[in-house]
Amino acid sequence: MLSAPATPDQGGPAPDAITAEQDLFRSALTRTIDEFLADQVDVLTAISEESLPLISSIATLTRGGKRMRALLCYWGWRAAGGEPGAAAPVTAGTALEFFQAAALIHDDIIDRSDTRRGGPSVHRQFSARHTEAGWHLDPERFGVSAAILAGDLCLAFSEELFTASCSAEAGEAARSIFNRMRTEVMAGQYLDLLEEAVGPDQTPEQAELRALNILRFKSAKYSMERPLMLGGALAGADEVLLTDFSAFALPLGEAFQLRDDVLGVFGDPGVTGKPAGDDLREGKRTFLIARALGESGSEVRARINAMLGDTALDDDAVHTLRELIVASGALAQTEKLIEERSAEAFRALARLEVDATSLEALRLLAEAAVTRTA
Amino acid sequence: MLSAPATPDQGGPAPDAITAEQDLFRSALTRTIDEFLADQVDVLTAISEESLPLISSIATLTRGGKRMRALLCYWGWRAAGGEPGAAAPVTAGTALEFFQAAALIHDDIIDRSDTRRGGPSVHRQFSARHTEAGWHLDPERFGVSAAILAGDLCLAFSEELFTASCSAEAGEAARSIFNRMRTEVMAGQYLDLLEEAVGPDQTPEQAELRALNILRFKSAKYSMERPLMLGGALAGADEVLLTDFSAFALPLGEAFQLRDDVLGVFGDPGVTGKPAGDDLREGKRTFLIARALGESGSEVRARINAMLGDTALDDDAVHTLRELIVASGALAQTEKLIEERSAEAFRALARLEVDATSLEALRLLAEAAVTRTA
Repeated sequence: MLSAPATPDQGGPAPDAITAEQDLFRSALTRTIDEFLADQVDVLTAISEESLPLISSIATLTRGGKRMRALLCYWGWRAAGGEPGAAAPVTAGTALEFFQAAALIHDDIIDRSDTRRGGPSVHRQFSARHTEAGWHLDPERFGVSAAILAGDLCLAFSEELFTASCSAEAGEAARSIFNRMRTEVMAGQYLDLLEEAVGPDQTPEQAELRALNILRFKSAKYSMERPLMLGGALAGADEVLLTDFSAFALPLGEAFQLRDDVLGVFGDPGVTGKPAGDDLREGKRTFLIARALGESGSEVRARINAMLGDTALDDDAVHTLRELIVASGALAQTEKLIEERSAEAFRALARLEVDATSLEALRLLAEAAVTRTA
Repeated sequence: MLSAPATPDQGGPAPDAITAEQDLFRSALTRTIDEFLADQVDVLTAISEESLPLISSIATLTRGGKRMRALLCYWGWRAAGGEPGAAAPVTAGTALEFFQAAALIHDDIIDRSDTRRGGPSVHRQFSARHTEAGWHLDPERFGVSAAILAGDLCLAFSEELFTASCSAEAGEAARSIFNRMRTEVMAGQYLDLLEEAVGPDQTPEQAELRALNILRFKSAKYSMERPLMLGGALAGADEVLLTDFSAFALPLGEAFQLRDDVLGVFGDPGVTGKPAGDDLREGKRTFLIARALGESGSEVRARINAMLGDTALDDDAVHTLRELIVASGALAQTEKLIEERSAEAFRALARLEVDATSLEALRLLAEAAVTRTA
């Protein structure tokens, strides 16, 4: 493989060529999702037409999104020497998108989030369906139960698609990454949940370490490291290259999630599609919060702890909490940590011995991931 | 393959030999489950020891149970010419047990069941852990959220194990059965849920047809037909044999679920491990209920509808509902339908052209399935 210059002005690939290649991949991804869902509509119709809302709930989620995980999988494939336009990373990328949709469906139940990407979350879609039709028993309970099943189905679909992308030996390495990724996310989400329950009893130092461990497993590995490695493994990447991928994508994923945590408290609802301060109402114990508690005096710390996880928190209280977090210096320090992890990622990227096009594509994805506002 | 006599007194295989072979299979199954869970303990420990309760919650469910689905898979394998004691049906059987555990974990959340096999259900285990430790925020919400994640993890484990049982071409046919099975169960469970919401507005005739469709997909295919076919497909069974398997196992599965519905209303809590009348409190719209409504006058029908799905139903009300169901003739008619479906299954079994040992083993499993009391 080539050691190539990293940016176009050093004679690297034109951004237009990368955009064009990504557009082709995105189209193939959308086509695969549509075809798969059309097949599943047939399967469910044979059971009962009344089961089709399960598919539409999955369709709304898998047809949107930034495709970040799928794109990382694609460039992992390409960087490991895979052919442009091949089918394997498309199917694997589709599997990642379905896995993400399944995680979001169940996550929104757990977090009691009413909205997702500016529209109703899946459990809210089902409870609205119940209310509109004037059905019997409790709409909310129906919504949650149906969304549990929709998430399960989406998880099963994800794996069906993943298997279709695997063949021969390369498939075994990829499958082991896929399996590990699923376990990491679910364990990470459990730790996240646990932290809401046990967090107030931790010392600030413990709380920071715990928050960093959670974001690594719940998000950084799953959103960045594993998709990139997955694509690489499918193309037959060796251990050395996979380790190099990890050295780039893990700190990038951590920066990405730290940014997400900042947006969960300070994000603009018009851009994020989520109500302002949602993470505060949920009581998420992120690094940002842990640092704010650690840097505050005991009185302010008690105020923060009392407000965190209060589902009835109004906009004024959210505003107050934000001010306390800023005043503690935690926001600035989290931004600094994001910069450090990003810098670490970009240093590892510069050392990657892959073709110039893949390198530039990964650089563009990395920049988008750490500078996003939604 | 041999066309063989069906019962020992006609010179068939000794029941002891079948019991011994099943015991070997059960031991291998338990060993595989234990080894797999031990490996996952290592994976989760590397993330955080605090995530280990996810594994223990899965372990309590996968270490119990009657192993009915796994045994059907095994005898499907054997009946299709697979070697006794082979690894493939053990791993596939383990996958079925994990899938069942995942379905139970999420089912108990949906049905708000506090108990499972005489112990606390998984969401109750987690909420009890929260209460005992005196953690912050709501124990019940923690319990449900953790159980959603435990079920997801168990679903992922099921597929990991399933993949390990597949190799080459035989694996593809088996995988397609496994995939179909998952989709059928989830769609069937959704229809079951929907029926609680829309059931009261159906005519009794519609309600019966709908109840029969639900039990077919939610249970009969998944509990009997698909496991048997899966084992057969793994051993390379052709379409003819798979169709013959289906002709036996689908009506058997329907009889099995109709029996389950009867036990859900009339079962002895000391034997079923579930509180008396739980299905009535949940508002399950089974064939038994549909028939009771159809056979009752409008006044009794209104009384039944008013009580169904009332989570606060006391023992007296359960007793009254039972009496109304018996008086309508629905219990006797459901028992008759169970007999008819069982007879259909046994006729199809007699036509199966498989070896005498497998035939006798399937006959014993079928008998146990339709005469059970728990």
